[in-house]
Amino acid sequence: MTALLRRDPHVITAGVGLLADAVESQAARLTRVEWAPPMAGTEADLARVLADPRRAGANAQAVERVFAARAMLVDLMPAGRALGLRPGEFLHAGPPITWDRASGPLRGALMGAAVLEGLAETPEAAADAGARGELALDPCHHHRAVGPMAGVISPSMWVFVVEDEATGRKAFCSLNEGLGTVLRYGAYSPAVIGRLRWMSSVLGPLLAAAVRAHGPVDITAILAQMVQMGDEAHNRNRAGTLMLLRDLLPAAVESGFAAAQVADAARFVGGNDHFFLNLAMPACKLALDAARDIPGSTMVVAMARNGTDFGIQVSGTGEEWFTAPALVPEGLYLAGFGPADANPDIGDSAITETAGLGGFAMAGAPAIVRLVGGTAGDALASTRRMYEITLAEHPMFSLPALDFRGTPAGIDTVLVVRTRILPQINTGMAGKVAGTGQVGAGLVTPPPEVFPAALRALAGAAQPPQARPPGSR
Amino acid sequence: MTALLRRDPHVITAGVGLLADAVESQAARLTRVEWAPPMAGTEADLARVLADPRRAGANAQAVERVFAARAMLVDLMPAGRALGLRPGEFLHAGPPITWDRASGPLRGALMGAAVLEGLAETPEAAADAGARGELALDPCHHHRAVGPMAGVISPSMWVFVVEDEATGRKAFCSLNEGLGTVLRYGAYSPAVIGRLRWMSSVLGPLLAAAVRAHGPVDITAILAQMVQMGDEAHNRNRAGTLMLLRDLLPAAVESGFAAAQVADAARFVGGNDHFFLNLAMPACKLALDAARDIPGSTMVVAMARNGTDFGIQVSGTGEEWFTAPALVPEGLYLAGFGPADANPDIGDSAITETAGLGGFAMAGAPAIVRLVGGTAGDALASTRRMYEITLAEHPMFSLPALDFRGTPAGIDTVLVVRTRILPQINTGMAGKVAGTGQVGAGLVTPPPEVFPAALRALAGAAQPPQARPPGSR
Repeated sequence: MTALLRRDPHVITAGVGLLADAVESQAARLTRVEWAPPMAGTEADLARVLADPRRAGANAQAVERVFAARAMLVDLMPAGRALGLRPGEFLHAGPPITWDRASGPLRGALMGAAVLEGLAETPEAAADAGARGELALDPCHHHRAVGPMAGVISPSMWVFVVEDEATGRKAFCSLNEGLGTVLRYGAYSPAVIGRLRWMSSVLGPLLAAAVRAHGPVDITAILAQMVQMGDEAHNRNRAGTLMLLRDLLPAAVESGFAAAQVADAARFVGGNDHFFLNLAMPACKLALDAARDIPGSTMVVAMARNGTDFGIQVSGTGEEWFTAPALVPEGLYLAGFGPADANPDIGDSAITETAGLGGFAMAGAPAIVRLVGGTAGDALASTRRMYEITLAEHPMFSLPALDFRGTPAGIDTVLVVRTRILPQINTGMAGKVAGTGQVGAGLVTPPPEVFPAALRALAGAAQPPQARPPGSR
Repeated sequence: MTALLRRDPHVITAGVGLLADAVESQAARLTRVEWAPPMAGTEADLARVLADPRRAGANAQAVERVFAARAMLVDLMPAGRALGLRPGEFLHAGPPITWDRASGPLRGALMGAAVLEGLAETPEAAADAGARGELALDPCHHHRAVGPMAGVISPSMWVFVVEDEATGRKAFCSLNEGLGTVLRYGAYSPAVIGRLRWMSSVLGPLLAAAVRAHGPVDITAILAQMVQMGDEAHNRNRAGTLMLLRDLLPAAVESGFAAAQVADAARFVGGNDHFFLNLAMPACKLALDAARDIPGSTMVVAMARNGTDFGIQVSGTGEEWFTAPALVPEGLYLAGFGPADANPDIGDSAITETAGLGGFAMAGAPAIVRLVGGTAGDALASTRRMYEITLAEHPMFSLPALDFRGTPAGIDTVLVVRTRILPQINTGMAGKVAGTGQVGAGLVTPPPEVFPAALRALAGAAQPPQARPPGSR
């Protein structure tokens, strides 16, 4: 003790700015440690979950299963056949919701899909049917599927089928329509419906023929390449789309389809840098589904929004959704739109962040932060922050700008609650009025309260620490 | 003076390590400035060139012309037609050379090309013809053309035609054959010749039909995108190749060529990540040719190697080549090869570095340094060092990793001589024995002595400082 007082003190402060400032004003040696208390009211749940003897092993297993998944594009087919959807049944993004609570863009997409399916003459008639409860709604996530933005999938829409050949597990996603006035952003004009009909009659069957002739396309390998090429696979999928075209076009040319149809399809896919998003998403879904239902695991296996609620699911708590009102993204708006036009956060596309891509991989895609008003430094900082709340670094998604370090992957409910650092999501913004379409793009996080809610459920299911066998210390 | 001695001294040392060390050992305040004397024996020439009143304006004009050039791919045709090459005439990479001084890979490529043109029955017979002086050799650079590695262009080979529509200026380059055992690395096996025949009979005509139907393809815009996507356009052209495919394939599909031929061409281009190199190169050639022959300009307008000599040309000294023996690149070898197998540096592809791409843009393509044994940090450092010897930052090639700063562009002979910093080139390595093909890839610089030689010529052509008009001060 005397020796300690005789030396010059080196003060280490954690979280307490006032004390640190006082020490600093006395010119003492000071090291500030960044620290914040955990989210309010979570101390008891944290203690219980941290003491669960299964946790470390369960999380290690969850991570291992995510990293072992290999998504191969094996086929395309109508959602009716792929998912057993019947006329009048519609899948949507995010946690469960009913028409009366549905946001404008979700309603708009359902109205358009009902017209596409021939269930209503007009979008307005479809809205009436929706209000009368005549449209059966269910989350994509409950059917091994995902959908961007409104995420509406109806029986006649074609879907990608991705498969992990080692386990036979599958995941599904609709085909991407392009940007602007499109169904997934809530638009339902005749042009939107006409495009969807062409996608079902030409694009889907043509790509299916190409995939069958070419053989399975390794989507996970393309994702790994994309991260080397400036894509983060959520809002930038340019290299991925180009690689898909490269892989499938030769087979498409030889598929027997008319040259004009092949050329139209090539122009449509090549003209839409987002086309690959709808393959990145089911690849992530496939990987994360493999990590579901591991007792004791605190890893997030889904983050999804329906335009009203943001929901997460956690490996150790089965099918339960932890939800709260979705936030409105902050970012840049298309000409003619502003913050008053933006719907709250919507879509299953945050499955990319859940798997270590999207906002978590922004260090590999600085053009994305620039798009929403930031700098390359912001992109690096964003990815670095996500290492604080993730369980691992993805062995296949390596970031050139961080000297090929793997992306932060496997969001840990415990780490989010302890650090108060929220997952960073980058996303498109839909107009809140049904029929509008896209109004901008920006950054958003989950509402914080979903994590303490999930932690509470994990605590309820936690095993107590094992009693030490007698005689042990 | 008294005041100066009364204060604690702050010593600034430039270049003299011994003095700095002595000051540091006395715990004095020290700032080291990185400095090296100019290259030996260049003081008088530097003084003369630096005093040339035309220099600043001439270099500004040179840079402006390079940046104003816009390379559009407008056509493809046989070199005989495009360049007026007659049977028995061959273009090659680098400065002028004769058969007796030609390296193995250049001889090998000439042997293969002579067989391709039907001038010899066998490569060996072609070598005999070469030794007898029966093959007419001339540098690509003397014909508005460039060629990677051996860079051999013979009349029946198809070439890309790129044009700057504002000036009508054109540049030309052969089509890329892929990696490994290929003519440009000096291989001449029947498989090599067969591939070249297919390129002349199918690939060239098919791409020409696609370009004519599609309209001009903006190569400069693709280059700008590539730098956002991990390509530096010399040893990594993956995104560029994909974007070219995307742009031309729809028109190729509708060109009337047989589906199998279109599919073969799509597989060939899509399977060769280097295909776009042969468009990056003439785009750079076109831009740099625009900056030739500006009296007083010290900007380098060509760096090229024939496998024996490395030569540079400078704007202010016309067609004169400044040459010295080419160095051997340092890097990694393909299995079965080692440093003893490598030919000295070869190819016109250093035109990319001359225009601010390749080694100068490595900060945008860290995968390249990894390929040759370095880190992402090395890639950043390499690009940063090149700002020391360049006149400007390229307004279209912006580097995400440097917060979208333009690549260093426009090598200044004066800055190279003054700083001793040599241009950084990344390159493929050819086997030194004719017929071998590629043996590795690595990093290299020009031989230093070409820059003092160019400076000497600039000094000889320099204008003296203008006499001040009488009465002025």
